[in-house]
Amino acid sequence: MEMNDELVTTGAEVTEAAITNEAAITALAEQTAVLSTQLGEAVFTANNIWMMLATALVFIMHLGFAGVEAGFGQAKNTVNILFKNTLTPVIGILTYFIVGFNLMYPGFTEPGWFAFGGFFLELPENGNTVDYAGGGYTYWTDFLFQAMFAATAATIVSGAVAERIKISSYLVFTLLFVGLVYPLIGSWKWGGGALDAMGFYDFAGSTLVHSVGGWGALAGIIVLGPRLGKYVDGKVVDKPGSSVPLAVIGVFLLWLGWFGFNGGSVLSGDPALTSLVLVTTSLAACTGALGGFLAGYVVFKRLDLGMVLNGVLAGLVGITAGADVISPAESLLVGLIAGVLVVLSAVVLDRLRLDDVVGAVSVHLTCGIWGTLAVGIFGTGMAFMPQLYGVLICGATAFSAAFLIFTVLKATMGIRVSAEHEASGLDSQEHGIRGYTITYE
Amino acid sequence: MEMNDELVTTGAEVTEAAITNEAAITALAEQTAVLSTQLGEAVFTANNIWMMLATALVFIMHLGFAGVEAGFGQAKNTVNILFKNTLTPVIGILTYFIVGFNLMYPGFTEPGWFAFGGFFLELPENGNTVDYAGGGYTYWTDFLFQAMFAATAATIVSGAVAERIKISSYLVFTLLFVGLVYPLIGSWKWGGGALDAMGFYDFAGSTLVHSVGGWGALAGIIVLGPRLGKYVDGKVVDKPGSSVPLAVIGVFLLWLGWFGFNGGSVLSGDPALTSLVLVTTSLAACTGALGGFLAGYVVFKRLDLGMVLNGVLAGLVGITAGADVISPAESLLVGLIAGVLVVLSAVVLDRLRLDDVVGAVSVHLTCGIWGTLAVGIFGTGMAFMPQLYGVLICGATAFSAAFLIFTVLKATMGIRVSAEHEASGLDSQEHGIRGYTITYE
Amino acid sequence: MEMNDELVTTGAEVTEAAITNEAAITALAEQTAVLSTQLGEAVFTANNIWMMLATALVFIMHLGFAGVEAGFGQAKNTVNILFKNTLTPVIGILTYFIVGFNLMYPGFTEPGWFAFGGFFLELPENGNTVDYAGGGYTYWTDFLFQAMFAATAATIVSGAVAERIKISSYLVFTLLFVGLVYPLIGSWKWGGGALDAMGFYDFAGSTLVHSVGGWGALAGIIVLGPRLGKYVDGKVVDKPGSSVPLAVIGVFLLWLGWFGFNGGSVLSGDPALTSLVLVTTSLAACTGALGGFLAGYVVFKRLDLGMVLNGVLAGLVGITAGADVISPAESLLVGLIAGVLVVLSAVVLDRLRLDDVVGAVSVHLTCGIWGTLAVGIFGTGMAFMPQLYGVLICGATAFSAAFLIFTVLKATMGIRVSAEHEASGLDSQEHGIRGYTITYE
Repeated sequence: MEMNDELVTTGAEVTEAAITNEAAITALAEQTAVLSTQLGEAVFTANNIWMMLATALVFIMHLGFAGVEAGFGQAKNTVNILFKNTLTPVIGILTYFIVGFNLMYPGFTEPGWFAFGGFFLELPENGNTVDYAGGGYTYWTDFLFQAMFAATAATIVSGAVAERIKISSYLVFTLLFVGLVYPLIGSWKWGGGALDAMGFYDFAGSTLVHSVGGWGALAGIIVLGPRLGKYVDGKVVDKPGSSVPLAVIGVFLLWLGWFGFNGGSVLSGDPALTSLVLVTTSLAACTGALGGFLAGYVVFKRLDLGMVLNGVLAGLVGITAGADVISPAESLLVGLIAGVLVVLSAVVLDRLRLDDVVGAVSVHLTCGIWGTLAVGIFGTGMAFMPQLYGVLICGATAFSAAFLIFTVLKATMGIRVSAEHEASGLDSQEHGIRGYTITYE
Repeated sequence: MEMNDELVTTGAEVTEAAITNEAAITALAEQTAVLSTQLGEAVFTANNIWMMLATALVFIMHLGFAGVEAGFGQAKNTVNILFKNTLTPVIGILTYFIVGFNLMYPGFTEPGWFAFGGFFLELPENGNTVDYAGGGYTYWTDFLFQAMFAATAATIVSGAVAERIKISSYLVFTLLFVGLVYPLIGSWKWGGGALDAMGFYDFAGSTLVHSVGGWGALAGIIVLGPRLGKYVDGKVVDKPGSSVPLAVIGVFLLWLGWFGFNGGSVLSGDPALTSLVLVTTSLAACTGALGGFLAGYVVFKRLDLGMVLNGVLAGLVGITAGADVISPAESLLVGLIAGVLVVLSAVVLDRLRLDDVVGAVSVHLTCGIWGTLAVGIFGTGMAFMPQLYGVLICGATAFSAAFLIFTVLKATMGIRVSAEHEASGLDSQEHGIRGYTITYE
Repeated sequence: MEMNDELVTTGAEVTEAAITNEAAITALAEQTAVLSTQLGEAVFTANNIWMMLATALVFIMHLGFAGVEAGFGQAKNTVNILFKNTLTPVIGILTYFIVGFNLMYPGFTEPGWFAFGGFFLELPENGNTVDYAGGGYTYWTDFLFQAMFAATAATIVSGAVAERIKISSYLVFTLLFVGLVYPLIGSWKWGGGALDAMGFYDFAGSTLVHSVGGWGALAGIIVLGPRLGKYVDGKVVDKPGSSVPLAVIGVFLLWLGWFGFNGGSVLSGDPALTSLVLVTTSLAACTGALGGFLAGYVVFKRLDLGMVLNGVLAGLVGITAGADVISPAESLLVGLIAGVLVVLSAVVLDRLRLDDVVGAVSVHLTCGIWGTLAVGIFGTGMAFMPQLYGVLICGATAFSAAFLIFTVLKATMGIRVSAEHEASGLDSQEHGIRGYTITYE
């Protein structure tokens, strides 16, 4: 029975070994599960960092707009312009906290045209976890990134209507436009509403942000009328801006901010997509500048820095709808056409005596439309008609709403300062200080 | 004996299988351990990226301060102001490398009031590993982030005492204040000293940075006296700043920088906490602006851009002590009150003939105190009394130290330029150039 | 036979257990492999985020250069300077997309002096995966980061030749210099060419970017000659810049941008290396400022803000070649010497009647050479002679090429505006607007 004894002993050892293995496997499986969870959180952390920094970059666009508008505006209205531009993100962020975010992302039960998630924001249960938004960012990052976008739409209007609008009316307009109109339209696509269901595509907002702002600007300058002395005897009179360097600072900061505006619209730090978006965005800005340069030279027979600067912005607005679905080589074309369009648009507006201080309508509306349609032309797997529908539906809504608000304000509070006021400048009257006091005794 | 033979064979196979399994398990366990280490390093990498970018954002606040101070200062003193503001971070970073960091984070053996880790810095053994600071950042990131903070305290003083302080005295003051006073006080809380043990809470420095700087500023303007011609026949005479756009650039850059100032004070890229902090910070900035706007309108009967801008900064300073423990909704209130306080404080200071060129005392001291106390009122799980003790102890120390330094400097080097000097402007005398030369022949 | 029966049963169970274990181990091994892949992607995501933000920071340096040049340039040439500075990154990025990137990183089969990867860029198969560049960044990030660098070399030239160069000639020069000369020289080291094989080290481009630009600038001011009225009767005539605040904005933005310029040159988010680089970079900027301050005081007997500002840039250029291999303590010395050198260099250039509007040659060439040699002196494990060879070979090439281009342009298109043109300012003639219009009726 020696053999059997041996066998029994061996059997027992083997059994023991199997059990030991089983325990080790269970422990390893637990460790692996923990690692898997931690790994999800690591990617979540990296994604959220990207989105927070994208938020910071979009924030600085508000300084960019302030620079462009104060730089291109006349010195006598500098403080007024800056006052508006400082309060615009303030109003934008606050209204978005109170009502906008929940109007734009209401959680449609089925794709529709209106829903509302309630006033003010509170952290949802999973809002700070990797389960929220696929681990791309937290609820608070989501809110803040979108809030920075919201204020942009109003800022676009601000540049067009500058130098003659009553500041109280401007503030009321901004409250309504940014608090209600912008998020309502946005909900149709980004909130998962009816336009989204129709196949409309707008990556970072050529239509939802820029055209919406541009339509508001167009409504504003129609209702307001041109500045005094802008169109005299059929001629366009130049109103020199106070500081070209300030406008250049503004445009470069806007370009910088677009790294976050488009790059953040990936909604995560996905390496392939974010870096592609930065490249198409930058290339379109460059060819936009070239387009503005060349068209500006042909039309105005001079090296027109204003057209180069607006060309940069035109290229950026143009690529915004499709920065993730248009190839780098095609983005060159999208930007170039935008740069040419912004010059032609500026000429047409002046022919129509529509006085836009900084060219906001040409940059944001004209090129916003172009960019949205360009997705239907160049975008991988994109159709043209949904893009056209989106442009028309959003345009009709934004323009009507802005026109209505401005018209009601005109009939009630009044929207234009007095002629003396306008002539002497808005700064001395309402703000009591000058934009620049550069004197040496 | 066939059975036994079979058994023996089976037994051998099973033994072999168990051994194979054991080897596979050992290999897997090793792989899992490696993965676990690498995962720690991945999170460490992401955290450190956030902290480095937060450092860059705090750095740009120094340009923000330069913009605010040069923008609100008179044109004849622009170069002098910018000279100070350029050298301030230089002195701040260098002294922090030589003495400050090791004074502020000395590694107290038990919570106390003074300890010192030695001159100059060298990388500790684990300084660049995941073991340092819980994997939130490296030793070098730690130093640089804190160094950017250190210089802030001196910059705050700079804005208040501008337009009449002797530059040599200012530089000596900065050297001492940033090299010794700031890190000493900081060590009591952030270095794990006695105030920390008392339960005092100051997330990102409403007291440790802003009030400390504000107390220095107050001491400075008391010892210096007001600018010539500022208070005449019981009236406050406006001294218009050279460039409002420059001040606006400054404020927006400060707001941007606060993304890093507060967001980086989480000391890691933790998604939940960093994003909450950015939201409370931004909301308080917004309601601060509103508070400054409304209070400015009530008090000065005009749309006072200066008060809106200082309101933004007031809200930011106010939320800084509790940005991580105050809810977004409450942060609205903290900012609004700060915005109102900054206007009232400015009025009171002018009544007391305390001449503060940019409102630094009102922004950083008044709202720094408010923000620190607000933690005791709104902060989750926070008590009020330790906040009050912290305000008093840090205040008494910072003010006494600054007052002492300024008084000794006054008695030795002198701290004020001559009356002719002040009247003609500091630029032409000491710097030999003008801030602006905008002439066309 | 009970014993045997039992044994058989036990054997079967054990076999089953062993098989179960084997299946569990296989499943775990698969999970671990997936985790390992995902972990690689997590680090890749974090690294790429760092590199994209570094790209954004280098981009904003172009606004920094614009600020420095427009700030130090005369008001009558402001628009012209800004026109050049806006188009420079545009041309830089576009030529780099079309030809530069593939000329600079051609994939040498063996280290040589010339290779070319073809016109235009297309995503390589693995370009967006963790396999590209060791998971440090994607192909598109790689391109954009390097494109932002490329434009820098041309911008450096722009500052030196300002206020008298013909804009058409400048644009042609930029096209050739940035499209061909810069990437060719860059390929010798960063593209893995002959200089790299010689042991030459240039971390972030003291030679490859700054000196190359500086040599171009030197060639430009030699061929162009000084501005009218700059050197009269053996004396240097000051030409006051339009706006010192604008120059300060520029320098601070350049310093900020250097966080990305040097920090991004680590080519990943490696915590130890990136944070060391930021510290050496910042410390050298600080002592550079001190060096400029002190040397400026000794030489010019005044508190010369221009020398402090150029001192900052000098320190930054000086540390750029060795920011990763020089210790923080040694970086203090590298920066200090750079700050002194920039002042001495400016004096020498004026003695030689080489008129450099913003001191670009002193900052970028003189300190670029110093920084490159400093690697051979202070750099851990670095030799001196390869550094010297690199300086000489790159210098001879860059200077000759730039001199040739400028000379040919002079003989063909002409490179200098007419004397009347120069006297009245370039803005009114070619651009039709003024840089500043600060008038109050």
